[in-house]
Amino acid sequence: MARKSSFVKQAIACSACLVLVLYAAYFTTFLRPASSPPPLDIRDGVVVGSTITLSANRIKVYMYNLPRQFTAGIIEEFARARGSTDVSKSWYPGHQHMGEWHLLADLNRTDEDRVGSPVVRVADPDEAELFYVPFLSSLSLLVNVNRRLAVADDQVYSDEKMQEELVQWLEQQEYWRRNNGRDHVIAAGDPNALNRVMERVKNSVLLLSDFGRVRPDQGSLIKDVIVPYAHRINPYKGEIGVKKRNTLLLFMGNRYRKDGGRIRDLLFRLLEGDKDVIIKEGTQSREDRRAANRAMHTSKFCLNPAGDTPSACRLFDAIVSLCVPVIVSDSIELPFEDVIDYRKIAILVRTKDSLQPGYLTNLLRGVSTERILEFQKELKQVSHYFEYKEPNGAVNEIWRQVSQKLPLIKLMINRDKRLIKRDLTEPDCSCLCTSLTDAV
Amino acid sequence: MARKSSFVKQAIACSACLVLVLYAAYFTTFLRPASSPPPLDIRDGVVVGSTITLSANRIKVYMYNLPRQFTAGIIEEFARARGSTDVSKSWYPGHQHMGEWHLLADLNRTDEDRVGSPVVRVADPDEAELFYVPFLSSLSLLVNVNRRLAVADDQVYSDEKMQEELVQWLEQQEYWRRNNGRDHVIAAGDPNALNRVMERVKNSVLLLSDFGRVRPDQGSLIKDVIVPYAHRINPYKGEIGVKKRNTLLLFMGNRYRKDGGRIRDLLFRLLEGDKDVIIKEGTQSREDRRAANRAMHTSKFCLNPAGDTPSACRLFDAIVSLCVPVIVSDSIELPFEDVIDYRKIAILVRTKDSLQPGYLTNLLRGVSTERILEFQKELKQVSHYFEYKEPNGAVNEIWRQVSQKLPLIKLMINRDKRLIKRDLTEPDCSCLCTSLTDAV
Repeated sequence: MARKSSFVKQAIACSACLVLVLYAAYFTTFLRPASSPPPLDIRDGVVVGSTITLSANRIKVYMYNLPRQFTAGIIEEFARARGSTDVSKSWYPGHQHMGEWHLLADLNRTDEDRVGSPVVRVADPDEAELFYVPFLSSLSLLVNVNRRLAVADDQVYSDEKMQEELVQWLEQQEYWRRNNGRDHVIAAGDPNALNRVMERVKNSVLLLSDFGRVRPDQGSLIKDVIVPYAHRINPYKGEIGVKKRNTLLLFMGNRYRKDGGRIRDLLFRLLEGDKDVIIKEGTQSREDRRAANRAMHTSKFCLNPAGDTPSACRLFDAIVSLCVPVIVSDSIELPFEDVIDYRKIAILVRTKDSLQPGYLTNLLRGVSTERILEFQKELKQVSHYFEYKEPNGAVNEIWRQVSQKLPLIKLMINRDKRLIKRDLTEPDCSCLCTSLTDAV
Repeated sequence: MARKSSFVKQAIACSACLVLVLYAAYFTTFLRPASSPPPLDIRDGVVVGSTITLSANRIKVYMYNLPRQFTAGIIEEFARARGSTDVSKSWYPGHQHMGEWHLLADLNRTDEDRVGSPVVRVADPDEAELFYVPFLSSLSLLVNVNRRLAVADDQVYSDEKMQEELVQWLEQQEYWRRNNGRDHVIAAGDPNALNRVMERVKNSVLLLSDFGRVRPDQGSLIKDVIVPYAHRINPYKGEIGVKKRNTLLLFMGNRYRKDGGRIRDLLFRLLEGDKDVIIKEGTQSREDRRAANRAMHTSKFCLNPAGDTPSACRLFDAIVSLCVPVIVSDSIELPFEDVIDYRKIAILVRTKDSLQPGYLTNLLRGVSTERILEFQKELKQVSHYFEYKEPNGAVNEIWRQVSQKLPLIKLMINRDKRLIKRDLTEPDCSCLCTSLTDAV
């Protein structure tokens, strides 16, 4: 528990204050409490089947109409835990793992509004190739992050209980049971999301930030999709350039982290006091967010050290700020790496090297203005991949990534069923390994 | 060597006699000896770039114009070793691993003739997403399968030498070096093909019959494509039905095999003498092939036990004969399993069970006529996947399978290059494992 709650606190810290975000009016219907909708009746949802246009080339996705305790109910619990008296008017709160909300909202749009999507929502599960489980797993972790908000223990919302109930519900569904969940897609953006039931959902395509909290047989680049954090800093709208970027290197965030994140304190000690560098512990007020916006928009490079797990929410803030990311996290996995060459938009530094006095600042001072402009130009070109709100942004790209897994999902489904059960001492796995020789 | 040569003999046995197959006239140009074409000049090939139509949705493939010793040269060596006096008139010989020939011939056609192909050949390697290396690796193994054909040792064709020279040549190519061969595709249908250089080509997409001779870090379902053997029995052209199929179970092939193939002798002992069963050692004459055709077209079930490796060339003969395959090979991998559910076209029997007296014949006698007709109907529907000569057959499907690997290939290429080299005790691999729980 200690491990988890500290991680959840980081999630909060990173997302600055939990502002309740207002969404366009057509989302509201979904959030209004309905009178106990039957779990699988899609007609009770916002978008009815008749509005959906089918297309031969697009992958057919069925979104479960989950019991509302797993979707809108969590948003209400979150508001209730923060003293809201009319939870029916609450909205999904802004935070770094709100990608789960955007995925749900996307599939609730009419197909005409889902411009450029590689998937089409179908009303009949028999038609579906993939099944989306819109459990708000990351928000569920946050509901009771601060236990003092709760009135009494038996009234306290329990994320663990919710996870268990979700999987119990799934395990009763015909389409889950059919293929042991292999053709199901579940968001688990927060590295601790679904932690209690990971073993029971491990066959599904998981939408993850990294593999920091999952075992290699539970999550992998082959089966799962690495998704970006939702950025919390405003995109930089100006032109590329360094004239207004007087700070060489910026870091604002938590100084003390576990595991790979221990280097943060060491980096603070090394970089504090350097005249070109701004490095300070981040806090969560609205004022600080404004300061962070300003700082990121006026720095050439933004430092992204590992946190408790290898992923770094600030990477995505840096990208949309056109502040060239300096990644110090040896085991990091990066979203959409088939279409993004991160060497073109970031500088990756080996942890060991970054801890040599003067190494980082010397390295960065040596980067020419032309090279920085090249980085910024590339950053501008890829930044749409990290925009959850853009029509052709992160959500469509996540579905494209998921769609690319479908042939392997189908192969494994057919193969699993015909496989002769053998007495193997190790799991029967197919792997893809990094190339150990150096590329030219 | 003993291991290899015995396997190669099996290859020959399985392919019945080595008839020299005649192909349509437009293939001939390729086979006529040319005066030392420059290795990378595509204009020296049969099909010049101008005839190729590009399409945005098709994957762009560059086929190397290999030094002819690796392509037409092997066909000539094969003919020369068999006493041909005019090797320039020789053709690719029919055998079970001739898929490599069909792949080469396909890319040599004009794009208009490559109906339904998911890939388009490009003349400029800079445009290419994938690179095809048309080395005739399986035929190379067969050239000197019978050493007595050779005149003197220094004149003897050496497959090992050819493999070495091919990889030396590849390792000098800019596009191979760029990504350590990860975006290259190489056929190695015979389980022993490329055996000497496997470690140096392991990053490439290999077109394999099974993983019997490759290590898990050299070949996998994730990276590679399982391709069908070329069938050697004529397709059954009649209607589905059992009236003319009086034999319950048929097996004609080698009785003595190594490794998983040891069960063959045990099955012979169990099944010999059963009145409904034809089980006899296969030989290689043209007469026997005719008998095999007749037998496969008049049997309800065809037995496919493992050979020296888990794959079974007779499986594809059975499929096109509409003789329901009975697969006894616990570790078999099957081609195109994302689009073919083999439970619908075959009966898979655990090796241990098959060796219980009476088990197989009782099982098969218990299959109703209706069920056999269902199997036959499904066999008819999928048989085009196993036709290398059909316009939309095995070749297009192999390219579709390869194309599906492209996102992961691109991801791994980008990731390999930005990866921080860590001191890991084990290879850094991403895996997909079979589901250990039973599906409903």
